[in-house]
Amino acid sequence: MEFFIENARWIVAIVAVGGLAFAFRQRAWVMQQNPGNDTMQKIAAAVQQGAAAFLRREYFYVAMFVVLVSALLLLISSVPEFDLSPWTVVAFVSGALASGLAGFFGMQIAVRANSRTTQAASESLDSGLRVAFASGSVMGTTVVSLALLGIGALIIILGNVIDNPQLAASALTGFGFGGTAIAIFARVGGGIFTKAADVGADLVGKTEAGIPEDDPRNPAVIADNVGDNVGDVAGMGSDLFESYASSIIASISLAVLAGSGIEAAKSGAAQAYPLLIAALGLVVSIGCTFLVRAQEGATQGQLLGSLRRAVYAASGIIAVIMVVLALLFDLGIGVAIAAIAGLVAGAAIGFSTEYFTSDNYRPTRYLAESSEGGPAIVIIQGMALGMLSVVVPALIVIVATLVAHTAANGLYGVAIAAVGMLSTLSITLATDAYGPVADNAGGIAEMSHLGKEVRERTDALDSLGNTTAAVGKGFAIGSALMTALALIAAFVSVTGISSINILDPRLITGFILGGMLPLLFSAQTMTAVGKAARGVVVEVRRQFKEIPGLMEGKADPDYARCVAISTDSAIRQMILPGTLAVAIPVILIVGARLARGTDFARFISAETVIGMLIGSLLVAFMVAVLMANAGGAWDNAKKYIERGNLGGKGSDAHKATVVGDTVGDPFKDTSGPSLNILLKLLAIVALVMAPLLA
Amino acid sequence: MEFFIENARWIVAIVAVGGLAFAFRQRAWVMQQNPGNDTMQKIAAAVQQGAAAFLRREYFYVAMFVVLVSALLLLISSVPEFDLSPWTVVAFVSGALASGLAGFFGMQIAVRANSRTTQAASESLDSGLRVAFASGSVMGTTVVSLALLGIGALIIILGNVIDNPQLAASALTGFGFGGTAIAIFARVGGGIFTKAADVGADLVGKTEAGIPEDDPRNPAVIADNVGDNVGDVAGMGSDLFESYASSIIASISLAVLAGSGIEAAKSGAAQAYPLLIAALGLVVSIGCTFLVRAQEGATQGQLLGSLRRAVYAASGIIAVIMVVLALLFDLGIGVAIAAIAGLVAGAAIGFSTEYFTSDNYRPTRYLAESSEGGPAIVIIQGMALGMLSVVVPALIVIVATLVAHTAANGLYGVAIAAVGMLSTLSITLATDAYGPVADNAGGIAEMSHLGKEVRERTDALDSLGNTTAAVGKGFAIGSALMTALALIAAFVSVTGISSINILDPRLITGFILGGMLPLLFSAQTMTAVGKAARGVVVEVRRQFKEIPGLMEGKADPDYARCVAISTDSAIRQMILPGTLAVAIPVILIVGARLARGTDFARFISAETVIGMLIGSLLVAFMVAVLMANAGGAWDNAKKYIERGNLGGKGSDAHKATVVGDTVGDPFKDTSGPSLNILLKLLAIVALVMAPLLA
Repeated sequence: MEFFIENARWIVAIVAVGGLAFAFRQRAWVMQQNPGNDTMQKIAAAVQQGAAAFLRREYFYVAMFVVLVSALLLLISSVPEFDLSPWTVVAFVSGALASGLAGFFGMQIAVRANSRTTQAASESLDSGLRVAFASGSVMGTTVVSLALLGIGALIIILGNVIDNPQLAASALTGFGFGGTAIAIFARVGGGIFTKAADVGADLVGKTEAGIPEDDPRNPAVIADNVGDNVGDVAGMGSDLFESYASSIIASISLAVLAGSGIEAAKSGAAQAYPLLIAALGLVVSIGCTFLVRAQEGATQGQLLGSLRRAVYAASGIIAVIMVVLALLFDLGIGVAIAAIAGLVAGAAIGFSTEYFTSDNYRPTRYLAESSEGGPAIVIIQGMALGMLSVVVPALIVIVATLVAHTAANGLYGVAIAAVGMLSTLSITLATDAYGPVADNAGGIAEMSHLGKEVRERTDALDSLGNTTAAVGKGFAIGSALMTALALIAAFVSVTGISSINILDPRLITGFILGGMLPLLFSAQTMTAVGKAARGVVVEVRRQFKEIPGLMEGKADPDYARCVAISTDSAIRQMILPGTLAVAIPVILIVGARLARGTDFARFISAETVIGMLIGSLLVAFMVAVLMANAGGAWDNAKKYIERGNLGGKGSDAHKATVVGDTVGDPFKDTSGPSLNILLKLLAIVALVMAPLLA
Repeated sequence: MEFFIENARWIVAIVAVGGLAFAFRQRAWVMQQNPGNDTMQKIAAAVQQGAAAFLRREYFYVAMFVVLVSALLLLISSVPEFDLSPWTVVAFVSGALASGLAGFFGMQIAVRANSRTTQAASESLDSGLRVAFASGSVMGTTVVSLALLGIGALIIILGNVIDNPQLAASALTGFGFGGTAIAIFARVGGGIFTKAADVGADLVGKTEAGIPEDDPRNPAVIADNVGDNVGDVAGMGSDLFESYASSIIASISLAVLAGSGIEAAKSGAAQAYPLLIAALGLVVSIGCTFLVRAQEGATQGQLLGSLRRAVYAASGIIAVIMVVLALLFDLGIGVAIAAIAGLVAGAAIGFSTEYFTSDNYRPTRYLAESSEGGPAIVIIQGMALGMLSVVVPALIVIVATLVAHTAANGLYGVAIAAVGMLSTLSITLATDAYGPVADNAGGIAEMSHLGKEVRERTDALDSLGNTTAAVGKGFAIGSALMTALALIAAFVSVTGISSINILDPRLITGFILGGMLPLLFSAQTMTAVGKAARGVVVEVRRQFKEIPGLMEGKADPDYARCVAISTDSAIRQMILPGTLAVAIPVILIVGARLARGTDFARFISAETVIGMLIGSLLVAFMVAVLMANAGGAWDNAKKYIERGNLGGKGSDAHKATVVGDTVGDPFKDTSGPSLNILLKLLAIVALVMAPLLA
């Protein structure tokens, strides 16, 4: 066993390279599929160009941001007393690069798999499912493999250049921070982009010009389509990249420091355990990918069953591995129980999201029925549903945390629970990233006027995607919370504050400050959509006016420019909340360090930072769940009525749910998911800067 | 000085009796005023009967609840190891009685002052203002006097029957809990009642029967009018009674225990200080009541100035007294700074509420303008405004807490800040309870077809009432937060947990559990209104059908029965959230006590309770501010448009704001204010039961 413990970093790096090879193989297989007829290819090509334009633009800003933060980190690390290793910057850049590359590959294949899925669906439901899922698995496998490769490689490098293992672990946290840098842009900026393009396209196209939705003459139509991929592929991917990398890093940090339930003698095994769980989780997930297939004419339940079978099989196998490894490494069965508690909690939170947002269950049905009372009642009921829906995941997290902490006899158990929850990420993310591909495939089938049969198959695939997306959203929030808890645990351990006065005024005021941040952040992201949409509206109007023959279909609109402008507007609206999220922990930590030993220490100290982290964790989690579930339920209540229930499309009840859905859009696609990032961002920045307060 | 310190309890009791004498004098003066012509008297009489019916019904349920809780407390105190004094029950019943009486007197005079205000306004604006304000001051003075009388008398009694001063202080906390029992019914039940009666009256009357609003033929019209008084008179009064009594009790508890910044030798002075500040605050406030007067034709600004002059004068004088007393008692100037920090913070939070909800300022104007984008945009902007509005009061509380703690060198300072904030309560509550009187006076002027001049004067008074109501709401939330902080500080001191591991999993899971409670509670109160309204609808329909000649105006509807049914429905909807709020801390504390020394102590302990208290404090505060301010802003945005702006009444913009206002109704009048109670309820129950964990 010593061999595996000592060489875990190498094993991880090698498995990661294997994972990348698998991703390339899957990618190649998808690319070999028939991309469909000329119309289908033309539409797909436009979306591909749009996505490329978006990524180019976004990554330009990301690069500037990375340079800026790197400079800041270098500046801080140049102060000798601050004890921040300059290698943190290397880790930071690597993390940004790895997450950025994963997003790039995932988006690239998603926008190429859409017409191929449509074409495959014209053959059989199973073929369609396989193509869409294969493209999702490219994203899932790439995210996980690049995260593991980065962590493995950095451990090898940092272990060689930094003598002190605690300093090396501290520098490694930069990798998680790098992932966060991408996630802010993909989740927050991307979330604003998606809705701004949507609103802009509808407002000028449908309302002013009077052309139908998804009409190729609308210059913003491609931006709108690109937006779907930005949210559920790039956004979700970067969000989970961050959770995945950070949970592993947090558990390593805790293991290096020992204490927190780890004896010093077992520190090595405790560091290797999360790494190997993650690596083997990747192998298992890849194997289970092949279990996804569908019978022709499969019901929604059977399709869902097919995906779930694969995820469950992966979970079952990895659970056994968790136990075996824990025993072989002599860490005690408790560590495995912690990991399994996380695994189960992740699935349970996903289910609770499905329960509260799917119209198969009582809450959303009840919401739809309330629409007969008008829009205000729909809003009140939706808010109440969202608030109520916080209870179940909160209880799940409570149980998982208590079990993990008790079983593993310390905070290390909580970090391992987060790693356990994410151990099968490559397959769970595949079921999620598959969604927008199926959605776009349906759009292409519609626009290319393919047969009713094809459309029915893509509809079935799309509807499945909506369910997996709901489950994925819950999973993303739950994993963000567990990861943030693990990061805070690592922060507290690094700063060595084992015990504090619970009523220290700095702690209490830190709580209030932290609790306020998610609301300030959400207020900004919610209004950002409207502001960003204005830029899109101006550009769409300009093109309609200045491009001769556009309305007659004789000239093509400038899709790329519309994408560029949407991107720019979205990024501009992102600056304020993004800066706030990065600046607050930096200012507090530097402030606490400078105040040390002075009279100001009565007002600001490490306690303030800890209070802020816990307060923001609590409120961000609650508001994120509330927004995601209220938004999802409003969306599905509307769809439920559109399928002919309660008066159907055009009825007053339908109009009321349209109001709910419009309110829910920024809730579930912009502000809610952005909070996942805020949650982890504050904690990872604090952990990166923790040496200042050690 | 020794004399004052030793006899503070007697001074307080004597001043309180004087306060009651003043309240009776004011009441007699109001009753001497001309109640107006027959029509006016008839309308007023109906509201009086309705209010009496409501109070009778409500107090019946309250009595049952008080008996039930008393039995529970006696049961717990009968377990010798639990260390709960049976005298706690006496204090509990006294608190319920005192708060119940204050609500009774306040409501009684409010519904008698309305027609008298109308009549006085037909003479001059100043006369109208004086009558309405005098009736408000009856409520303000009664609340404060009865709270002080109860506390003073209990200290005298408990000091004689209980030898141990700590146990005596602990039994005293029952008084605060008694106030809370009333507050649940008045704020939560009353909040549901108000809106259920409103919705029921509108739905059947306006929509089904086609008769105008406020038509005396509508059986629910009186319930609706009674509802206005229930919310802003009885609800606000009981809420602030609870804050007032509990903040004084918390500061005494901390002073008895010494530590927390108090030397043992100064314990007596530290106990006397909050008592005397409160007593002198009452005297000063009564004196400043006479500063309220208005010139004929006064502008809105001048009227507001007249009220503010009185409040500022009282605040200025009491601030000087705070300093003088602190120096005379040799407690150090820091204690006075803490008290003044609270005083200033209360005013500042009130202003911030006014800023975010008044259409004189940018946020509500901007919200009104956004209504041109339709109802969904109004909801999104309102939510964003509500979220943003949390930032300012949060920062104010942060500064006040840090200043108070630092200046007074401990948690005692935070409790004193809460006492300071509430020191001029009798006059600030008067400005608040004045509002619904002016509102009803306007209604009576309208229904009695009085001249345009009278209506203009009552409109001016009513509009002023809206501003003071907004300020009062902010003040109520701010004082609830500070009081809850003080109570938690006392709880922690009693249990003797000075220092804990910030990442104790029981603490963390307690946070999450506590954070979830306000959302669960709000989800229930938000949906309660709709459910309670159904009972009202059924009754109104029945009366329309079964009472012959009702629609023709030949027979009178059974107002009292409608009030009784509204009350019953509201109370029934209140049971679940109310029970939850009382049961959770009791279960956790008893559970933690029973788990002590067993294996279960790894899952539940005093840390769980502390975490729960702090988590709920944080989330309840944030959500309460969000709901109160979003609701207030939606209401005023609608009124702004109704005054002819942005297209005026009937425009699409107006319809959009009506949706906002309808959503805002349960936000600002039911769920939001209910959270103030939850906030303090959890903390006071914990403090009452604290001996179990000592």
